[in-house]
Amino acid sequence: MATIRDVAKMSGFSVATVSRVLNKKGYVNAATEKSIVAAMSALNYTPSIAARSLAGKSSGTIALMVPDILNPFFPELARAIEDAANGYGYSVILCNSDNDLQKEMNYFDMLVSKKVDGLIVASYSLGPDQILNLKKRSIPVIAIDNHFGAHPIVSFVSDNRAGGAMATRHLLEQGCRKIAHICGPMSIVASRERCLGYEEACGTQPWFLPSLIATSDDFHVEGGTRAMAELLKRHPDIDGVFAGNDLMACGALKALYRLRRKVPEEIKLVGFDGLAMSTVVPELSTIAQPIREMGTQAMDYLIRMLNGERVEERAHVMDVTLVVKQSSQIVHTRG
Amino acid sequence: MATIRDVAKMSGFSVATVSRVLNKKGYVNAATEKSIVAAMSALNYTPSIAARSLAGKSSGTIALMVPDILNPFFPELARAIEDAANGYGYSVILCNSDNDLQKEMNYFDMLVSKKVDGLIVASYSLGPDQILNLKKRSIPVIAIDNHFGAHPIVSFVSDNRAGGAMATRHLLEQGCRKIAHICGPMSIVASRERCLGYEEACGTQPWFLPSLIATSDDFHVEGGTRAMAELLKRHPDIDGVFAGNDLMACGALKALYRLRRKVPEEIKLVGFDGLAMSTVVPELSTIAQPIREMGTQAMDYLIRMLNGERVEERAHVMDVTLVVKQSSQIVHTRG
Repeated sequence: MATIRDVAKMSGFSVATVSRVLNKKGYVNAATEKSIVAAMSALNYTPSIAARSLAGKSSGTIALMVPDILNPFFPELARAIEDAANGYGYSVILCNSDNDLQKEMNYFDMLVSKKVDGLIVASYSLGPDQILNLKKRSIPVIAIDNHFGAHPIVSFVSDNRAGGAMATRHLLEQGCRKIAHICGPMSIVASRERCLGYEEACGTQPWFLPSLIATSDDFHVEGGTRAMAELLKRHPDIDGVFAGNDLMACGALKALYRLRRKVPEEIKLVGFDGLAMSTVVPELSTIAQPIREMGTQAMDYLIRMLNGERVEERAHVMDVTLVVKQSSQIVHTRG
Repeated sequence: MATIRDVAKMSGFSVATVSRVLNKKGYVNAATEKSIVAAMSALNYTPSIAARSLAGKSSGTIALMVPDILNPFFPELARAIEDAANGYGYSVILCNSDNDLQKEMNYFDMLVSKKVDGLIVASYSLGPDQILNLKKRSIPVIAIDNHFGAHPIVSFVSDNRAGGAMATRHLLEQGCRKIAHICGPMSIVASRERCLGYEEACGTQPWFLPSLIATSDDFHVEGGTRAMAELLKRHPDIDGVFAGNDLMACGALKALYRLRRKVPEEIKLVGFDGLAMSTVVPELSTIAQPIREMGTQAMDYLIRMLNGERVEERAHVMDVTLVVKQSSQIVHTRG
């Protein structure tokens, strides 16, 4: 099958110029366009996306489907994607799916009927079949914050397991000797991986017990509060907590505040996500996902797919970083 | 000029059916559609929007332009608008303008070129002329969180002045006897109105001084922290604070935490906006704007405009409510 590079080579113009013709963006003179279209025809170069674009069927929009824009992870992702899309001349349609498979399917039909060019999706309800089906309908898809094993699906996901281990090792280094873990929903792969990272870092410690892990039904503040209260009932001597995301860490903070347990003096706390939670006191240590970079790279990849380029259809695992703030600091008491 | 109601009357069908024909949404049988189109033609009913829709030029999308989706007010608004739009079969394009007039103008061109049907905009940089210009380009516009005096512009805005007075009176009722105000940017009407409300409620108190008002350059956490520190330097005996929005209230909370001043025991605090700030400890009392209702009503209004209905082109002022949480509670010390 011919690629955009073959078209560029045959017509004698650059890939960028071919891309401009395909996407009908930017200036290309008529003669140039004619040669490029002739080369495409000679090479039988008709990736469906490019064909759609040539037929004037490109809407210049992509869709971003998230469970709920109210979860503060998603505004950060949306901002990054919209900025990148805007740079490419694309607009971003926002869809809130509530992780409801029926709603997701309805959005898929909408994407097709409105000729949306591509989709970036964060979903914990869609399976690989649904995504592959959309690909069959000629809509390129990129998954965020999820991966689909050996299925040929492009996704961007953080190294959740390494992050879980990093958070736990940091608490050990800060002197914690009984570290609990608030685990997110077990149905979500990221939760399980962060939990595995925690166990990897402290599972061989003499004080380790499986009852130091409490699971929340959701990734929200309230779940974190409940799990923290439960953990303190089981183990009043906990001196460190790794929460599976920042919202649950805030929930843990609320439970600790109510029980008058001081953070970081008595209990040190680390979250996960790296949200700009500037409203929280004390400021939260966290494992930062490269949310902005994830959004930017996803958009760059989608553009390459829209241009008919071949891309690696697999999960791209991204590095996370430890951000130390007040909630896990060593407090030196004045003598 | 004929209205959609005239078309309904003449054709003998309901306004809803005419609307379905105009928007090409939902089922209408061929004969019905034919009669309605005939009535439109006879009445010379061609509001540009309807004409565009009939000509298949409606994209079924509306745009939501906000300064920055990272400000937590806007995800709540976006969610409300997307839910309402989805119910009408419309998709929502998200635009982040950074209150940059040039960026806003570029988005306007994009809206026109992508045949976006309408716009809901929250902006503190656009003037009435820019909005009226877009109307001239046949794109109906609704402003949120702003009003434009006597200009014929539909907007939805909270009763900011009443809210400011409500917050301050609540602090007086909780026993505060020296209440400061952290005022948002003076360039934004809402800031000035909330400040006027504060003065209305406590300007005649014997302890009132203009230096009890500190202004922040922005509506963010950091500005609130700086203003709070400044106020405490000027007046160490402050026992109540009304912050012009929730983010600045969180900033004030951080300054108070650093200075080891207890909230609500020593200083009571009220914010403004009513964001779901479930991450903040202690929980923040606030003046809640009806964000969800504002978004829903804006979308309903936009649909009426898209249907060629005549609407009241003025500011719609919406009631706010006091939500009392931990940060302004009276604490009874046990004897």
